[in-house]
Amino acid sequence: MTSLDFDLYATDDAARTGVLRTSRGDIRTPTFMPVGTAATVKALYPEQVKDAGADVILGNTYHLMLRPGAERVKRLGGLHHFMRWSGPILTDSGGFQIWSLSDLSKMTEEGVIFKSHLDGSRHMLTPERSIEIQADLLGADISVQLDECTHYPCEKDAAASSMQLSRRWGVRSKSAFGERSDQALFGIVQGGVHEDLRQESAEELVAIGFDGYAIGGLAVGEGVEMMYRTLDITTPHLPHNRPRYLMGVGKPVDLVEAVARGVDMFDCVLPTRSGRHGQAWTDWGPMNLKNMRFAEDNRPMDATLDCPAARDYSRAYLHHLIRAGEYLGSMLLSWYNIAYFAHLTARMRAAIAAGEFGTFRARFHACMAEGTDAI
Amino acid sequence: MTSLDFDLYATDDAARTGVLRTSRGDIRTPTFMPVGTAATVKALYPEQVKDAGADVILGNTYHLMLRPGAERVKRLGGLHHFMRWSGPILTDSGGFQIWSLSDLSKMTEEGVIFKSHLDGSRHMLTPERSIEIQADLLGADISVQLDECTHYPCEKDAAASSMQLSRRWGVRSKSAFGERSDQALFGIVQGGVHEDLRQESAEELVAIGFDGYAIGGLAVGEGVEMMYRTLDITTPHLPHNRPRYLMGVGKPVDLVEAVARGVDMFDCVLPTRSGRHGQAWTDWGPMNLKNMRFAEDNRPMDATLDCPAARDYSRAYLHHLIRAGEYLGSMLLSWYNIAYFAHLTARMRAAIAAGEFGTFRARFHACMAEGTDAI
Repeated sequence: MTSLDFDLYATDDAARTGVLRTSRGDIRTPTFMPVGTAATVKALYPEQVKDAGADVILGNTYHLMLRPGAERVKRLGGLHHFMRWSGPILTDSGGFQIWSLSDLSKMTEEGVIFKSHLDGSRHMLTPERSIEIQADLLGADISVQLDECTHYPCEKDAAASSMQLSRRWGVRSKSAFGERSDQALFGIVQGGVHEDLRQESAEELVAIGFDGYAIGGLAVGEGVEMMYRTLDITTPHLPHNRPRYLMGVGKPVDLVEAVARGVDMFDCVLPTRSGRHGQAWTDWGPMNLKNMRFAEDNRPMDATLDCPAARDYSRAYLHHLIRAGEYLGSMLLSWYNIAYFAHLTARMRAAIAAGEFGTFRARFHACMAEGTDAI
Repeated sequence: MTSLDFDLYATDDAARTGVLRTSRGDIRTPTFMPVGTAATVKALYPEQVKDAGADVILGNTYHLMLRPGAERVKRLGGLHHFMRWSGPILTDSGGFQIWSLSDLSKMTEEGVIFKSHLDGSRHMLTPERSIEIQADLLGADISVQLDECTHYPCEKDAAASSMQLSRRWGVRSKSAFGERSDQALFGIVQGGVHEDLRQESAEELVAIGFDGYAIGGLAVGEGVEMMYRTLDITTPHLPHNRPRYLMGVGKPVDLVEAVARGVDMFDCVLPTRSGRHGQAWTDWGPMNLKNMRFAEDNRPMDATLDCPAARDYSRAYLHHLIRAGEYLGSMLLSWYNIAYFAHLTARMRAAIAAGEFGTFRARFHACMAEGTDAI
């Protein structure tokens, strides 16, 4: 029994397309979740995110618990109301940011102690507190268990004991979450790049029973080949009828390759971060709009994309804005990239539904091989 | 004979309201022109500027001639097409920014030699080149003559010789501009704070014959009382049937006081610059959204203002965004401020038309006296 219906419409080899149904709206899968770190998808209005085709966004527990504070968000009406996003929100557990951003952290069986990167204040995050913040205070539609993310490379013994800690935290998270009619909880598969650990982690999480399964501990330096291989050895151990979420990934090609391996959900700061730095993503790779070859290129980024940032503004203007350091350059390229990523997932959904995902994937790689000089 | 029809609908003491008719649309006066320095009103989409109630924007010749370059803008279809603003654009002459931004400048009878603040490259701007850039290359609807702006304080002899140089440049600008059916040219009244010089400058410019008259050399450190007094001694010497433009002004109260003295047009970076720094302007003064008193203030900035930035987002959210250094905070407060300034001019137009400008002005000062704690 789950609070999150997942209707799988079609599969094409390992690739799948379907719809996750939440009380705040449907999430068409494969889906890409723009990251709204500090209660805003950087440089975008919430309406733009929605209109660009994003069904769901991600909120960062670590950032929000520190600023403006989870209790404050609750008093202000919850995260959806606070940031004016009426669609579904998935929050992460806070674990990954503690691991990557905070000044100091100490892992104990109980939880993790860390110092804020903002003001050095001391905090403790436990599996129970993470659930309280995500589900009760922020009001996330989908919460994710607290886990420990291991560095790469990592000795197998360390990967195993870390994975077991994450599993125990998964049990506590599930217990703290309880039964909820309109909110869901995802577990996180760990185990580094080790097949037996990934299998063990997946099977134990499935035994606990979650609404969906995140695949953690990837995109942390292991390289794409190792990441793809780890997906190959992990997704077969996850239930067919539950969504699979690859955390923190990634480049467009990584989305295509992970979908080919049965992944349904993604999140990454790449489209907005790239946009702020003058990069526009395409099937042919990232275009650097700062490049002088765009100085008098009066074509839009992509006239076929139903997004004003892609269709209505010239590359020459984007080039000028980025070189001049203007807000509007970051705004337009972040918007364009979010629309491109949403459109990429839409094209994958259509290709899978038509049984043509293999063709889509081959064409995508052919474009990448051509490079951005072709467009 | 002029290419710029100006229909004065009503006057109320010295205050006036009317419509300037350009081939790209009507400009309702009094009007405030948002500043689009580098071919963008900072942090706003062009549609937002228009929808906020702005009829006309200002472009900076100095910035655009250096980046992306005036000839390049021309090749890309002109400034309107380049930046996607289909309404009227007024450009300044470049003189003021050379005076305030460039590394070195040398004034000669011929023009001004300066070094770019961007790359140190050497340039010369003459009255004729300024007209070429504004009217021919950028395609401004309203161009402004090149002038010399004197510092404050300034000896009367220096103010007089500077004013005479600006007058001679006015003659050359008019000659270079020639007769145009759908573009207009403004002269600039100088003369510091000296009544006889301001009168002489105004009368000589009127004899040359311009489509409108800018009042220059104010808001450069002389203080508001001296600025108001200089307006008092200047506007009576300008023709009733031509628009009057107070350059680089200013705060809302300065707009109200200048309108009371017969000014029709304004421009200033204040609303967008303040917005980027967390300030929201109101009749009660500037509100600093960083202030902790807004941390849990769930009210919008102004529910009565027909602008999403004013109506749909809470002060608590704006407070959070500004404190977190998020783009969206700058975007929303710049948008709000542009809408507030546009609405302020709209209320002044309505008050003048109703013969109630004195009451409006008194109420405005009463709000200012209350301060922002009142709202």
